[in-house]
Amino acid sequence: MIHAFSGGVGGARLSRGLADELVGEDLTIVVNTGDDFDHLGLRIMPDFDSVVYGIAGWNDTVRGWGRAEETWQCRDALAEFGVDTWFSLGDKDLALHLLRLSLLESGATFTEAAAEIVHRMGINCRVVPMTDHPVETIVITDNGDLSFQDYFVRMRCEPRVTAFRLAGVERAAPSAAWFDPLTGGDTRGVVLCPSNPFVSIGPILGLPGVEAALRRSAAPVIAVSPIVAGDAVKGPLAKMLRELGQPVTPLAIFAHYGDLLDGFVLDVRDEIFAPQLRERGVRVAVCDTLMSDREASRRVARACLALLSECDDHAG
Amino acid sequence: MIHAFSGGVGGARLSRGLADELVGEDLTIVVNTGDDFDHLGLRIMPDFDSVVYGIAGWNDTVRGWGRAEETWQCRDALAEFGVDTWFSLGDKDLALHLLRLSLLESGATFTEAAAEIVHRMGINCRVVPMTDHPVETIVITDNGDLSFQDYFVRMRCEPRVTAFRLAGVERAAPSAAWFDPLTGGDTRGVVLCPSNPFVSIGPILGLPGVEAALRRSAAPVIAVSPIVAGDAVKGPLAKMLRELGQPVTPLAIFAHYGDLLDGFVLDVRDEIFAPQLRERGVRVAVCDTLMSDREASRRVARACLALLSECDDHAG
Repeated sequence: MIHAFSGGVGGARLSRGLADELVGEDLTIVVNTGDDFDHLGLRIMPDFDSVVYGIAGWNDTVRGWGRAEETWQCRDALAEFGVDTWFSLGDKDLALHLLRLSLLESGATFTEAAAEIVHRMGINCRVVPMTDHPVETIVITDNGDLSFQDYFVRMRCEPRVTAFRLAGVERAAPSAAWFDPLTGGDTRGVVLCPSNPFVSIGPILGLPGVEAALRRSAAPVIAVSPIVAGDAVKGPLAKMLRELGQPVTPLAIFAHYGDLLDGFVLDVRDEIFAPQLRERGVRVAVCDTLMSDREASRRVARACLALLSECDDHAG
Repeated sequence: MIHAFSGGVGGARLSRGLADELVGEDLTIVVNTGDDFDHLGLRIMPDFDSVVYGIAGWNDTVRGWGRAEETWQCRDALAEFGVDTWFSLGDKDLALHLLRLSLLESGATFTEAAAEIVHRMGINCRVVPMTDHPVETIVITDNGDLSFQDYFVRMRCEPRVTAFRLAGVERAAPSAAWFDPLTGGDTRGVVLCPSNPFVSIGPILGLPGVEAALRRSAAPVIAVSPIVAGDAVKGPLAKMLRELGQPVTPLAIFAHYGDLLDGFVLDVRDEIFAPQLRERGVRVAVCDTLMSDREASRRVARACLALLSECDDHAG
């Protein structure tokens, strides 16, 4: 089994590549739930939905979230009722939310609901929420403590970030659907997708026992850099790094994950950092990490799988 | 205050007329909830929604339910997930259901959620669910006992009806928002809308204390015939009457309500029944009861208000 830890867009793209490359094999995508929240009585799971839409090819690649060829009749009708529509749900996207609502109402856990959704979408790998417990990523800013969606959607990432907090994480057991195989030695490698290390991968690594399990595991752990040529491919990561006084380079990402990593996938535009990374004791693969289409996602997935094999050979 | 008891389409049309005629006065529409059910985690309230859409002029007059200029993106996307879409929710219609969901999730009763919806729609009268308790209209047929939606939507009213049952009615207190003013003497008349007497008005009259309160009240009670020229204007009422061995005439409606009534509004096509009704001790008004547009609804509403005054004068 391969485990991939994922946030939203970038993780979804690599997840699709991994799912394409690992057909018939055992792939488990572990998805951040720190951004999840309740809205109009629906459970909103932005990263999970980005990943399953991405793997199924239903995602809107221009907008970067939600479904392609979306319509907005319901949102506009909600606005007529005077409902604050700061968070938009498209008409097609609502179908997934209603399916989830009906599963949760009938007593399913987030993990069980996810499995049913994945099954109904015909997705050929596991996509598992990191935990069934509520964890809320709080962005600590000079505008106060903000929930991730407040920071990201309402305030457009404008407040200056000083730190992060994961409310509820200390009581949030990792979902057994992915953690049992990981701790049981059933994984041959873990890929940290090119997602935000603070607010996407950070919550998964922050769950009780996860970092220790990764260190104990014989399986290699690799990361794909979400920083390319001095900027984040998507989202507020570059701005966050600057506000935290860190360089906007792959080295900052490596420093964040530290000695958890056995390997690092660097973008070809950042090859200059390869020697410094190798000096720090990780194996480095270099490739074009921009996943602009399905084939590009497969290319990065192949680089990840090759690097995992290389780490494994070296360890063996 | 005027009280009107209403089911779906016919009641919605008369409700709109009453709301137009009674601007600035006190009108309370009491709506059947016996057809309500849970679907995909949403609370479906067909009659309530027909009434508020009808009063606001948002209803689809051709289809007979839901909103005008509706789209079906979400329903089609649900079908792609393999969700059984026997019960269709349009994209615009979903907005009302999500608003209701969010109100109910935040602890509102059905009555409180209804008041908020009515307020947000800018409706100038009260529209109150008959009760906050679950009541389920069961249609007893030669195909077994069916919930109303199963009978009406899934089985297209095809099974032969032998009787009706109101599951839970004995524990279902009428909502105080309409029952307190009724019992407190604050009503000057009650209109039973041209809705199905068995499955629309029947559940309201079947709530504990309602019939007794109507009999005790000094305010007159009148009904508008849902049977015109030997057929029901809408829905399975004519078929039900035949299967129950009753004539498809206003006399069967009168017989059903019996001595609860002080007045009866007869369609002009059925004027022939006026003498027989008068013999039975009710005041009769005759008018064109087909409410094909807004002005027609006002016309029937005026006939109702005039008949209530006539009953009142006579009693005084």
